[in-house]
Formats: sequence, structure tokens, C-alpha cells
Amino acid sequence: MKTCAIVGATGYTGQELIALLQRHRALRASVLMTARPGVQPEQEGVDALDLGRLADVDGVFLCTPHGAASRVARAALEAQRPVVDLSADFRLRDPALFAATYGDEHAAPDLLGDAVYGLTEHARAHVQAASLVANPGCYPTSILLPLLPLATAGLLAETAPVIADSKSGVSGAGKAPSERTHFGSVHENFLAYGIGRHRHAPEIAQELGRAVVFTPHLLPVFRGILSTIYVQPPAGVGADDLRACLWDRYRAEPFVQVMDAGTPELRDVRGTNLCKIAVDASGPLCVITSAIDNLVKGAAGQALQNMNLMLGLEETEGLL
Amino acid sequence: MKTCAIVGATGYTGQELIALLQRHRALRASVLMTARPGVQPEQEGVDALDLGRLADVDGVFLCTPHGAASRVARAALEAQRPVVDLSADFRLRDPALFAATYGDEHAAPDLLGDAVYGLTEHARAHVQAASLVANPGCYPTSILLPLLPLATAGLLAETAPVIADSKSGVSGAGKAPSERTHFGSVHENFLAYGIGRHRHAPEIAQELGRAVVFTPHLLPVFRGILSTIYVQPPAGVGADDLRACLWDRYRAEPFVQVMDAGTPELRDVRGTNLCKIAVDASGPLCVITSAIDNLVKGAAGQALQNMNLMLGLEETEGLL
Amino acid sequence: MKTCAIVGATGYTGQELIALLQRHRALRASVLMTARPGVQPEQEGVDALDLGRLADVDGVFLCTPHGAASRVARAALEAQRPVVDLSADFRLRDPALFAATYGDEHAAPDLLGDAVYGLTEHARAHVQAASLVANPGCYPTSILLPLLPLATAGLLAETAPVIADSKSGVSGAGKAPSERTHFGSVHENFLAYGIGRHRHAPEIAQELGRAVVFTPHLLPVFRGILSTIYVQPPAGVGADDLRACLWDRYRAEPFVQVMDAGTPELRDVRGTNLCKIAVDASGPLCVITSAIDNLVKGAAGQALQNMNLMLGLEETEGLL
Amino acid sequence: MKTCAIVGATGYTGQELIALLQRHRALRASVLMTARPGVQPEQEGVDALDLGRLADVDGVFLCTPHGAASRVARAALEAQRPVVDLSADFRLRDPALFAATYGDEHAAPDLLGDAVYGLTEHARAHVQAASLVANPGCYPTSILLPLLPLATAGLLAETAPVIADSKSGVSGAGKAPSERTHFGSVHENFLAYGIGRHRHAPEIAQELGRAVVFTPHLLPVFRGILSTIYVQPPAGVGADDLRACLWDRYRAEPFVQVMDAGTPELRDVRGTNLCKIAVDASGPLCVITSAIDNLVKGAAGQALQNMNLMLGLEETEGLL
Repeated sequence: MKTCAIVGATGYTGQELIALLQRHRALRASVLMTARPGVQPEQEGVDALDLGRLADVDGVFLCTPHGAASRVARAALEAQRPVVDLSADFRLRDPALFAATYGDEHAAPDLLGDAVYGLTEHARAHVQAASLVANPGCYPTSILLPLLPLATAGLLAETAPVIADSKSGVSGAGKAPSERTHFGSVHENFLAYGIGRHRHAPEIAQELGRAVVFTPHLLPVFRGILSTIYVQPPAGVGADDLRACLWDRYRAEPFVQVMDAGTPELRDVRGTNLCKIAVDASGPLCVITSAIDNLVKGAAGQALQNMNLMLGLEETEGLL
Repeated sequence: MKTCAIVGATGYTGQELIALLQRHRALRASVLMTARPGVQPEQEGVDALDLGRLADVDGVFLCTPHGAASRVARAALEAQRPVVDLSADFRLRDPALFAATYGDEHAAPDLLGDAVYGLTEHARAHVQAASLVANPGCYPTSILLPLLPLATAGLLAETAPVIADSKSGVSGAGKAPSERTHFGSVHENFLAYGIGRHRHAPEIAQELGRAVVFTPHLLPVFRGILSTIYVQPPAGVGADDLRACLWDRYRAEPFVQVMDAGTPELRDVRGTNLCKIAVDASGPLCVITSAIDNLVKGAAGQALQNMNLMLGLEETEGLL
Repeated sequence: MKTCAIVGATGYTGQELIALLQRHRALRASVLMTARPGVQPEQEGVDALDLGRLADVDGVFLCTPHGAASRVARAALEAQRPVVDLSADFRLRDPALFAATYGDEHAAPDLLGDAVYGLTEHARAHVQAASLVANPGCYPTSILLPLLPLATAGLLAETAPVIADSKSGVSGAGKAPSERTHFGSVHENFLAYGIGRHRHAPEIAQELGRAVVFTPHLLPVFRGILSTIYVQPPAGVGADDLRACLWDRYRAEPFVQVMDAGTPELRDVRGTNLCKIAVDASGPLCVITSAIDNLVKGAAGQALQNMNLMLGLEETEGLL
Repeated sequence: MKTCAIVGATGYTGQELIALLQRHRALRASVLMTARPGVQPEQEGVDALDLGRLADVDGVFLCTPHGAASRVARAALEAQRPVVDLSADFRLRDPALFAATYGDEHAAPDLLGDAVYGLTEHARAHVQAASLVANPGCYPTSILLPLLPLATAGLLAETAPVIADSKSGVSGAGKAPSERTHFGSVHENFLAYGIGRHRHAPEIAQELGRAVVFTPHLLPVFRGILSTIYVQPPAGVGADDLRACLWDRYRAEPFVQVMDAGTPELRDVRGTNLCKIAVDASGPLCVITSAIDNLVKGAAGQALQNMNLMLGLEETEGLL
């Protein structure tokens, strides 16, 4: 039985990770810590952050907010413990882009070169060899999984924009109470936000190699993301070709399912590490719908998938 | 005090119309009827359909399913009573397109020429003179209100597709129990449906004069539609120009509000006859968000707006 | 047209009052103020609290938290303006009980003698003559309306406890974000709270003249309270007798409806000033179910009902 | 690996059982069948009912509606296969009471003597030896678990009524679409139903040995039951004594948790086989709050707990 630490154990992703690890047969969470101001650790059943304890475990998950992860990551790496960082700190390779996107100078630019962007199905070998994995954002996971194989295969026309219209449950906004997450603001409501300026857009562009028009929305549900993606295929190419491309690419993948018919629903993926994808035609465009549980494949589940690889465990352990 | 009949008074739109008319100072619902199989009229507080009673009122609202409206419309027109039909029967001008879209031959093709498509802000004079108004569909209302002025002004590039990604509450699916409308299917769920083949797409295309890529989704809320619309402006034109165009067009309209900042939320329009519209830039495209209450501006409210005009009443009466 | 001020205009009850007054034909909200720390009044479209402006209106609504209302009430009374206080400051006649219940000394014990407990249907004449009305709490309104006539008529056995099992929507907890009101804490959840020690229990006991076993619960809805009340009738008395008593008492009341059959649902009263009541038998007990909208009859609606009386306006104006 | 059949595999409890068995290490669902009229078995991934196949498995779960279970139970018993029946067919020992409660003559009164009422924590030895287990109703499970030990210990005053005010999620009403389960009827709504005449009341009375005043309510959530139970303790006995009694009784039970402080919330038990119980004082009464997931401890989970015992497997297998 290997052991791991979860830093930032009181938030939604930390709690989800704890829940997933309760079913894991080869890895257990032996250290739970938090550095959140205002949290009384003993109340939440976790300890106050103590960097010295990172050496006591085999791997470290960082579930802290962006900005706070870098310092803990450095301590863990110095103790030669593999790190999966669920924050945004190591997702963007360019520290200037990080600063422009997140509003602060990057706290550990020297570590950026070591970080592997851990979209597992597209980085498996790199993740296995990595000391530091940047776990992808929730929206990017739902968008990149369908788009990367199509881009690679040349099935996205260069001249037309790619549009991702994404809808997320409230847990994506985190556990901190705010006017935005108040029941009265969410229930029986729906809205778009951050049009043209969401922080996940640069992350998607970096990985896809081209910009995407990205519009996030807030759904009155707790969990789940559905992205509806509009792409223009090259002349002579249709929805069947795109579906076949994805089908081939993901045939052997346990956590990505390309549907033959119908479209994915949030309830199909809730509580699972699955990404379900459908491709349909609509006029001159193809419409790709992609669903994940933002707290699992979009956060804690993919993080565990990556940690399993880094520790030499079965990739699917704790996730089926 | 003028009087009206509501045929199909037990469904969601009929009930909404009854509620609106309770606050109307110059029109009251004096005849409530239903032809729905399986409904025991007396239980629901309405009467069984009796075409003879249509002559007893000043105007007739048809809230029946499509297909059933034509026969009642003919009777009302023969009695020289103005009709607002909330079903789809008179929305498409081409009976062949109707048959292809709704699966049945049109029951009254001879009346199609008399029907006015009642998107009120764009057909006011025609509605005032009409004997038969086809009340627009809910999705088309949310999409056409922002797009029509832009198309007229030449602010939509001809070469790029227009995309409408729309999200609707459950009431749009009607009151009949089904697996789709079961609480367990809707709550904490979200999905796209009818991609590339929804019945409202031909209606939008007819009115806009060009096809739109239209994807409807089912939200876990009861009321409201938010449409997120992606358009390519011509070279040198930006979001500010589109916003200014809409602002000019709707400046004097009581029920269409173009926002200076922010984006519309469903709760802003719930229970109102408003359409709230915002325009933002995102990469090379403009993103228009448009929110209505599907049962009010998307159905009963706009129907009342139209009937007010047809009967020579104040257009806003019962709607503020 | 008379005018009124709303102090505490940014909270849920203040906002509800503003909405109700928009339909009022004889009273308008000409002064909106807030004293809430952290609120930037200009942002919310209200002014900072200025006691001098209370003399500019005909009546004053206080929608502030308890404790904050006393000072404003005093200023309004000194300006000889009638006050309806929606906070708890003047509900309990005994300042010692107030201190024990709310944890602070009462800020204006000298005013308590002037305050009328404004459960309108049971205090109409007193309200008309009052300068200061303490608007009842939401839970007490739903419980006292059915129980008071039964107690008066001797239809509640003295020896058996009266039990009120009440369930409230989230808006009862106010607009301030907290862990308790976070969407993730409320949605798909349900719980009891404050068992045996809720602040509304002494208020109910004071008005009913006997203690009640009161258990509040938090429903995953925005609006509405349903109280399920268990009472033991005296020997030889049954549910029909209790229903008849309530029926007689409320026959002429526009806002209290005693049902012949069925039980009230929250949606029956949502957005209305109604209290709907049913009485059923269950074994040796009678079960009374009572539903109100906590923001209307449980707060702003009843407050307006009271202000209408105090200003000599039609009691139902703005409320039908 | 042992095998089992699930008859009625397309409903909510059948589906929940399938989900639980996917994590079971010693029992798998090898036969899934349905007899539901109107269901096309192949569509749902199950087979049409074939009684001959019951001999192919080690145990049989019946998830059919009441009335339909008896015939299948007889066939399974004749094939000497142990049966857990999740319907109401074998819960009431008296066939006349069954007829009065469910409106039909009992279809297999000769089998009633063999049936064990499977509230596992109170019938473990009987369940182990049984050929036919009547799985308890969801409401009765939430009510009997706290009350049975108190009744046995003489901690419920004989002279005062016991009141159970229960609130259930919609899944308790089953998967069949109806006006009652339509999203529009449930969402943002709440109501009591079946006051004084719910079918679970005789079941509770049979097991507790005394009648209970039982009021069920419908919550706008999918899963979960919270019962708020009011009992009068004997003179000199208080909430602490009742809590201590339950604490002692359930100390060693993995699926019943008696809380030291706080009250149970639905989210604490969602997706688990737990019953969480709290005891508080309120005036002269004690208030017991008891929460379960109606589909797990209230149905499929307890059924699996019972089948594990009947087949000689670890009782908690598949349930932790």
C-alpha cells in the first residue's frame, strides 16, 4: 500500500480525491492538510500545512488555489516526491502568459520546464516519467479530448473558428460562499460569464495549437460539464468521418467513450471518470457534445489517473 | 371590457395566458375550453371544446398542439373573430415545408396566406391589420429578436455560419408526463437534443432569410430560454457596432432591452415579457446572449401583445 | 399617491416589497436606503441610510436585521411616521425574553409598549390605530393563522402538546452568502435545524398563549413555508370540527383559504399573499397543513397589508 | 462468485441493485429480467421474464410492483432459491390487512408464514435462516430503526402518540411518468400527501406493535428520506437517555450511526447504506431525526445486506 498527501483537503476537489481513494486498493491518503486562511483544520478533520510531512508519503496532490501551489510543489519536489497539481500554476508553459491570465507573477517559473500537462490519454508516457504533472482544467479536459485527435488528423478546417459553448455545474466555482454560489443566485437560473476572457481559453489554445472561441455558462446543477463544440470540417469531410476518427483514437481507452447514437447527458457521467462524446452534423458544421464530471475526469479523477501512472500503479485503480 | 376565448386552456401556455389576463384591465378570458383527449374538462375548470362559442368573444387564443389548431382557427375566422395561434400551424408559409417538418399534411393550407408571423416588434403594423397571427416559437423569438436588425443592417458576414446554441427550461416540453419530463430525468441533468433537426430551425431560416446552425438543450429549470449566438461581423465591424445597431433598433421598445454591460440571466426575465440582449466580442466572432421567459415573451406574453394590437387595446396592457 | 421609505432595501424582503409596490396604485417607494455594512449603496441602486429623509414619506418599512431596526424606528416615530418593522425587534413584548432569545439587550424597550403584533387577520383594528407594527415572523405566520382560531374556540386539548413541523425555502435564511446557503449545501439536500431552540418559538408561544414544539427544516427551494401541525382535539371533536371552525373564521378573509379537500402545495401560494390551510385526521390527532410564501404573507406582503391599513388605504391593494 | 437474478431490473430499485452489484466481489447479477407491460426488454438491456431461468442463479431479487411479486416468488421458492422481495407483497403478515391496504386479495397467502421481515439489524438470525425475506418499505426503515430499540427498552410513554413526519425524494414514487413526478410538479414545490392513510402505516404498526401517526411529504430531491419523529418519554427520562439507548443498541452496527451532536442531512447518507440518527429535546418531547437513502438502505442496499446473509456472504460486501 502506497501513501499520498492531499494539500488543500477541505475544498471540493480535495474531498472528491479523499472519496476516490477510499476505494483504492493500492494507495491511501495518509496526510491531509490545508493552508486555507480561516479554516480551522481540526474542525475539518485535516491538519495545518506542514511541508516537512511531504517526505512521509509516496506522492503529493495539490488541491490548493492557483498561486498557493508553487511553494508546496517546490518542497515536494525537493523531497523527491512526485506531484500532481490540480491548480492552474503549472498548466501554462509561458510565465508571461500566466501573469497576463492570472494577474500575478508566476511564483516558480524555474519549475515550469519540468511540468507535464496531464491530459492522460494524450500524455501517458510523459506522465509516467514526470516528477510534476499539471492536471488540466475542467473545461479544457472536456474540450481537448474531442478536439485533439481531430486537429492531429487534419479534420478541422484551418480557416473557420472553433467554438466551444460550455456549461458547468456550480462545484466548478469552488466551495467558498459568494453571491455567485448562493442558492438563490443559481437555482432556477442560468447565465453565460467571462465571454472572451475566461482563464481556461489560453490553456486550450496552448494545447490545441490554435485559439478557440470559448463561452462558459453556469448550470443550476452541482456537478458536470457539457461542452457543445462547433467545428467546420474540410471539404468532403463529414460528421461520420470525425466520429470514426475519435472512435479509432479512443477505442482502447477505458475513460473516453465515443457514442454511436444519441448525445451524452450529465447524468451519464456523474460520479465517473468518463468523458462521453457524440458527433452530429448540423448544416455546414459538425457539432460535438462532450460530457464529463468536472470533479472527477475534470479534476480529482484525472489527477488520480496521473498519480497511478507516476507511482507505477494500475492506471484505472480507484476509478472504475 | 373585451372578452376572449382560450382553446387549450389546460396546458402550460393556456394557464400562463389565464394568469396574465387576470391583471388585464380591458380584456378578460370569458371562455376556457380544451379538446385534449383524456382531460376531463370539468376537473380542470374548463369546458369541452364547442366551436359555436367562439362567436361569443372578441378574440380567440389557440393553445392547442400543432395540427389541432387549424380546424378551430377556421371556425373562428368564419365567425370573423381575430385569432392568435400559439401552435406551429401557421408559422411556416410553405405547406410542403410544414409537412416535411411536422410529418403531416397541413390541414388548412388555404389559410396560410392570411397568417402574419407575429414577432411583434418586427410586424406591428401587419399584426394590427391581421385576422390570423401565427405566434412565434419560443426558441425563434429568442434568436430572431437579436438577429433580425443585424441582418437588415448587413452586420452579419454572409460567408460565415450563424450559430445559435440555445438552452430551455422544461416547460417548453409541455405538461404531458413523459420519461423526458420526469423529475429524475431533468434534475441535476443537462443535455443537447435534436441537433441539426429541430422543428424551429426552418422557422428561424424562413424569417431570417438564411439558415442557422441551431442546437437546443434542456435545462433543469422550469422556465426560461437563454440563446448564445455566434456571428461573424464583416471586416472592420465589431461588437460595439452590433450593440449600437440593436440599441438603436430597440430604444423605444418596452419589451426588448439591450444591455450596456454584463449578460442576461434567466432570473432577470422570469415572469416578464422581456427579451434581454447582450453583445460581447470573443476572438474573431461576436457572441450575443439573449434571454426570455419561454412561457411569456416566448408564448403567452407575446400572444397577448399581439391580441392587444388586433383588438385595438394598449399593446403593453397586462404585460407590465 | 402616498409614499413610503424602505430601509434595508437590498435584502430579499426589501426587494420583494419593491416588487409588490410596483403594482400598487396608491403607494410608491420613494426612498430606498440601506445601512448594511459592506454594501455600496450606489451599486445596488439605493441610498445610504439618512434618518432625516424619513420625514419625507408617509410611512416607513424596516427590512433591516434585528437589532438595527430600533434606532430607525425611533427616528421615524419621532417624525410621526407610521412604521412597519419586518425585523424581530418589536415582536416580543418582554425585553428580557428578547435578550434571552436574541442575545442582546433590547435597544428600545420604551417603544415596546407601542408596538402591535401585526398578524393582520387577528389584529386589524389595532393595526389601523398603531404607529408601530411588529410584522410577524414567517414561521409564526404559517403556524398562528391556523392555530389561533382553534385555541380561541377551545378546540385544542390542553393536556397534549401542539407540534409544528415546519419546512422553509432558503430565502428565509437571507441573502448573505454563507456555507449554509451555498448551492452545494442546499441542492439535493434537506435537514432539520435549531430543534428546541429556534427564535420563533417564543414568538409563537407569546401569541398562542402556550408553548409549541417547533422544528424548522431547510428545503431545497427558494420560496415557501409548509408547516405540518399536529394537534389533539378534545374528546368528541374531530378534523371536520376543526375545519369548520377555521372555515367560519376565515370565510371573509381574502388571504386565508381553508381547503375542502386536498392539501396545500408550495406552488399554490408562491408569489401570493395567501395562506392555504387543510385539516385531516390521522389516528387520534388532527393534522393541519398550512402553506405560505415566506417572502410575501410571511414578510413583505403582510407588511404591505399592515401599511395599507395604517395609511387608510385599501387593505388588499398591491396584493391581489 | 455466486450469481443472482433481478426481476424488475428496469425500475429505480432494480437499477440501484445493478449498480451496487458492480462493486460486489462475491455476487454478480447474471440474470436481468422484466415483466413490466410496455417495456421492450431488449431496449433496456434486460430479458423478458422467464421463470425457468430462476434455477440458474443462487438467489433472486424481486423489484417488481406489489402484486406481481408473489407468482415469481413461488417459482423461485419451488426451485429452492432464496428470495428477497423488495415489493410490499410479503411485508404484512395478515392477508386481510394486505387486502385492506393494497386493495387486492393476496396472491400467495400460503407463503406469508415463511416470510421474514428483513429489517436486517433487528432480524439478522431470522434472515440468515430464511428462504423468503420481505424487504422493508423505505419510510418504515427510517422510522423503525430509531423506534424499535426505544420501544423494547420501554422508553416510549404508552399514553402519548408517536408521530413520524417523513419527507421523501421523488425516486420513492418510482420511474413511471405521471403528473405527480413531472419536473414541473416537483421542482420548487413541496407538499404532504396520504395523511392518515399511507400504505406504510400498517407496516410500521405491525413491527412496532403500536400505531404511529404518519405523514409523508414529497421533497424536490431525487433521493433520500428524512423522518422527524416526535415521542414522549416516560417521566424522568430525557433525550440523553434515548440517545444512550440507541447508541448502545447500534454501537457495533456498520450501517446505523447515532450522532453525538448535530442532525443528519440527506447528503450525509446519499448513495450509502447508512441510517443516521439524532435525538434532541424540544419542550416535553424528544425529537428524533433519521436519514437514509431511500434507494439504498430503504430498498436495494438493505436487500443486498439481506441476500448477503442468506447466501452466507459477508453482510457488508458491496455496501461499504
